[in-house]
Amino acid sequence: MELHPKWVVGFVDGEGCFYVGVNKNEAMSLGYQVLPEFRVVQHRRDIQVLYALKRFFGCGTVRRNHEDRYELRIRKFECLKKVVEFFQNHPLKTKKNVDFKKFSKIIKMMDEGKHLTREGLIEIVQIALEMNTGKHEQLKQILCELTGKAG
Amino acid sequence: MELHPKWVVGFVDGEGCFYVGVNKNEAMSLGYQVLPEFRVVQHRRDIQVLYALKRFFGCGTVRRNHEDRYELRIRKFECLKKVVEFFQNHPLKTKKNVDFKKFSKIIKMMDEGKHLTREGLIEIVQIALEMNTGKHEQLKQILCELTGKAG
Repeated sequence: MELHPKWVVGFVDGEGCFYVGVNKNEAMSLGYQVLPEFRVVQHRRDIQVLYALKRFFGCGTVRRNHEDRYELRIRKFECLKKVVEFFQNHPLKTKKNVDFKKFSKIIKMMDEGKHLTREGLIEIVQIALEMNTGKHEQLKQILCELTGKAG
Repeated sequence: MELHPKWVVGFVDGEGCFYVGVNKNEAMSLGYQVLPEFRVVQHRRDIQVLYALKRFFGCGTVRRNHEDRYELRIRKFECLKKVVEFFQNHPLKTKKNVDFKKFSKIIKMMDEGKHLTREGLIEIVQIALEMNTGKHEQLKQILCELTGKAG
C-alpha cells in the first residue's frame, strides 16, 4: 500500500496522537524521564494501514494497544525528529496542529539537551500540561515536585 | 481552509461513516424508506473542518451530533451520488472501503428505482446488513417482515 503525504496528513488529523509522558526514573539526574511519542491506533482489521505508515515514516513499532485495537508507536528520538519534520512541511488541518506545535517544541528542546536542566524540564512539563493529550494530574504533581511549590 | 482530495480521503478513512438506515414509513408503498447518509463527526473545536468538507463536496449540513460533537451529514440523493463518484475516483485505503462499496451499490440501486420493488428492497436490506455501520437487529427484523419468514 503506497501512501500519499496528503493522505497521511488527513489520516493523522483524524487518528494520530502526539503525546509527551514524563515518568519517574531514578536513573535520570533530575529523577524524571521525558517520553515523547507519536501514535496511530486502529482496529485490527486495518493493521495493514499501520504497517504502511511504518514504511512511510521508516520507523516505529506495530503492537497491540487494547483488545482488538493495534497501534503504530514511534518513540525513537531520531524517528520523532523525522515525524516532526514531515508535519512541519505538511501541516495538519485540525486543531491537532496546536498539540503538534507543542510536541515539536519539546522535541527541539530535547534535541538541545534542555530536558537535562531543571529549568528546561520545568518548561517541558508546562508545555506538556497545555497539550490535549497529557496526563494532567500526574504532570501537575511533577511540576509541584520540580518547582518545590505546594499543590 | 482549502482541502486537497488526498487529504479528504485520509481524513474520511479515519473519521467518515457510510450508513444506510431503513425506517418504517407508511407513505412508502412497501412501508419502508431507505435512508443512506454520509457523516463525518468532529469535536466542536474542529467545526471549521466540517464546514471545509461541506464546501469541498458542495453539499451537506453541519449540525450538532451529541454534546460537544458536531457532524457534517449528507443525505440529499444527488449529493450522495457526488460523494460516491468522488470516492470511486479516490479510493479509501482502510477497510472502510468495503463499507463504501456496499453503500455505493445501494446508491446505484436506488438511482435505478430498485428500492421501490420488494425484491430490490430486500436486496438493499441484505447489503445494509453486511455493512459495519448498520443497526443489524432492526434490519434483520425488517428483512423478516419483507420476506415473510419467521425470525
